[in-house]
Amino acid sequence: MTDFAATRRAFHLPKGVTYLDGNSLGPMPVAARDRVARMMGDEWSEMLITGWNKAGWYVQPRKVGDRIARLIGAGAGEVVMGDTLSIKVFQALSAALALRPGRRVILSDSGNFPSDLYVAEGLARAVGAELRVVAPEEVEAAIADDLAVLMLTEVDYRTGRRHDMAALTAKAHGAGALALWDLAHSAGAVDVDLTGADADFAVGCTYKYLNGGPGAPAFIWTHPRHADAAQPILQGWMGHDAPFAFDLGYRPAAGVERMRVGTPPVIALTALDAALDVWDGVSLSDLRARSIELSEAFIAGVEAQCPDVALNSPRDPGRRGSQVSFRHPQGYAVMQALIAAGVIGDFRAPDVLRFGFAPLYNDLGDVDRAVETLARILRDETWNDEKFHQKAAVT
Amino acid sequence: MTDFAATRRAFHLPKGVTYLDGNSLGPMPVAARDRVARMMGDEWSEMLITGWNKAGWYVQPRKVGDRIARLIGAGAGEVVMGDTLSIKVFQALSAALALRPGRRVILSDSGNFPSDLYVAEGLARAVGAELRVVAPEEVEAAIADDLAVLMLTEVDYRTGRRHDMAALTAKAHGAGALALWDLAHSAGAVDVDLTGADADFAVGCTYKYLNGGPGAPAFIWTHPRHADAAQPILQGWMGHDAPFAFDLGYRPAAGVERMRVGTPPVIALTALDAALDVWDGVSLSDLRARSIELSEAFIAGVEAQCPDVALNSPRDPGRRGSQVSFRHPQGYAVMQALIAAGVIGDFRAPDVLRFGFAPLYNDLGDVDRAVETLARILRDETWNDEKFHQKAAVT
Repeated sequence: MTDFAATRRAFHLPKGVTYLDGNSLGPMPVAARDRVARMMGDEWSEMLITGWNKAGWYVQPRKVGDRIARLIGAGAGEVVMGDTLSIKVFQALSAALALRPGRRVILSDSGNFPSDLYVAEGLARAVGAELRVVAPEEVEAAIADDLAVLMLTEVDYRTGRRHDMAALTAKAHGAGALALWDLAHSAGAVDVDLTGADADFAVGCTYKYLNGGPGAPAFIWTHPRHADAAQPILQGWMGHDAPFAFDLGYRPAAGVERMRVGTPPVIALTALDAALDVWDGVSLSDLRARSIELSEAFIAGVEAQCPDVALNSPRDPGRRGSQVSFRHPQGYAVMQALIAAGVIGDFRAPDVLRFGFAPLYNDLGDVDRAVETLARILRDETWNDEKFHQKAAVT
Repeated sequence: MTDFAATRRAFHLPKGVTYLDGNSLGPMPVAARDRVARMMGDEWSEMLITGWNKAGWYVQPRKVGDRIARLIGAGAGEVVMGDTLSIKVFQALSAALALRPGRRVILSDSGNFPSDLYVAEGLARAVGAELRVVAPEEVEAAIADDLAVLMLTEVDYRTGRRHDMAALTAKAHGAGALALWDLAHSAGAVDVDLTGADADFAVGCTYKYLNGGPGAPAFIWTHPRHADAAQPILQGWMGHDAPFAFDLGYRPAAGVERMRVGTPPVIALTALDAALDVWDGVSLSDLRARSIELSEAFIAGVEAQCPDVALNSPRDPGRRGSQVSFRHPQGYAVMQALIAAGVIGDFRAPDVLRFGFAPLYNDLGDVDRAVETLARILRDETWNDEKFHQKAAVT
């Protein structure tokens, strides 16, 4: 059994705070700060340029990728780190399109994170493809024989709705298309199984449930059947077969390493590597069971004590990720009042209160505090206070 | 007068090491480690998600960009940070191409850093453009009326040869083309003046002469006349006019902020921000004068004491950046012997010994030690030792 009391102790959680926003930014694993300080003091400072070899900076994107592979049902050597999620979406989508010559349709849904749609829009404009966006529940029916790529985020960033990755991938394959999955709200949250689902490409970020820190690097996975054929539009020297030959012409590296672009972000990868230590010994089935236990307890508590809010997530935990959202007409102010009371979730327009349950550090005590605080705020209409209606630049 | 003894003290320079490879990776400014530890301990740990507003993470790419703007002859609000240099090349090049509809030729030279050429090759393949690569000395003559974009790295990464940015930009404009400049070996090394040269786009990295750490984020500059018209293929939510409206359709932000893509790398930007403190009070004309003083002294010393090597850089300092290279038939082994003796430069195939002079921390003592050590190694043929012929993975 995974020891979740031990994994909770691995994080710095501020006193008096119940943190239910790890689906936006995970808290700091206590080891991360010292690890980064050591990297800066012992490696950068002392090794200087020789750190690329001596400290292993050069191979870090692949080594950290291997650690993530286990959490998403991928094999060693199949995942590489770098850049940001949007950039990895661009690479995977352009590579997938190129693998389906003669087809130009990209299908996505309105539950996808907007940045993925912006990336697809920019790419489609450039290469003459067409982006079709349907409602999440219409995706299955919209998979047609003209489809090149099905591009979905597995878990909806607002509702927590989880797509059936295996079924939709199979349907896409049946139509002759490829499937690209964004795991932003899945990796470290649910029991992802890319190999079992037979997906083609996957991408994700590491600052949510993987706790790599604000703006931590992204990952990209290519199924081995495509890894040596994939040719993304965005290609750079670190993805070259021989970067240090400094050839004038590009020749892609074998496998997923061709998805590397520029010089890797060593400091950020070091923080992430420390954050991944917490995952050693965590079983994905235990993770999934704990996630369901926490979210089910939260829904039951809120529905028993907070009559003014409406569940905005699927009721069936099998169809949810690790987050739960509720709607309230004064959602923004309610969330500000909650944050002021030490319960941190977040708000998504127009009226969504969003709560993430990170199995590594959230527990039933967090659930109880969140339910009680929300109930009190709604009962006392604390949110009516003018100060809770002022909008900040970033919410 | 800039106090270069004070700026030198701002860096951690390992004992016994003469570091002449800041053109590849700058050393650590001593303040950087504590600054990052504070960001992790006080901001990420304690503020959690609220750090995006409270700690200013969200506006950091623009604020750090403003600090770099001064070093490259750009105005406030014209530079934004993020991603890597290769990715910023891709954005700038795609935006420049789109501003010259009907023209499809990208002109570059064989002295450009290969990654820029790989990026251009991938983009050209996708959008049906043509990449022409000529020798550096042939660039001027190759600027023709079918040209869409002139894409050059100002300072050659091997020879240190500096292009005449103003003249080549004017020639490109005369042919109806735009000019994109890569400042990887210029920013923080020479007196760059983008506004004076009337350039159109510029990009650069910050881990060389700007000392932001291994894999530090890149910068991108758009001339104000293009900033609201530029439409890069690669677009993401942080470049949206209203990222937190989560609209399904993309609407670019005003100005250079549209060049932002995904979530910014906060830890890395914090290290860079600390590194930029060292630049406060440094005048670019003093910087250039010091760079020339150091490189001229090095060339004079080597030519006087090392008859076996041949200068591989322009002799006229006005045509050089802040690095100098020499050729030797056993260049690889000579550089390994130099490194073993505490003088760190680097090697570029087939026979180039490369030495960077960073005015902020290198001094005439470094020059003397490097000259004497090189002279001794060549005189004693120390490089003959078998151990200096073993190749490492990354050189």
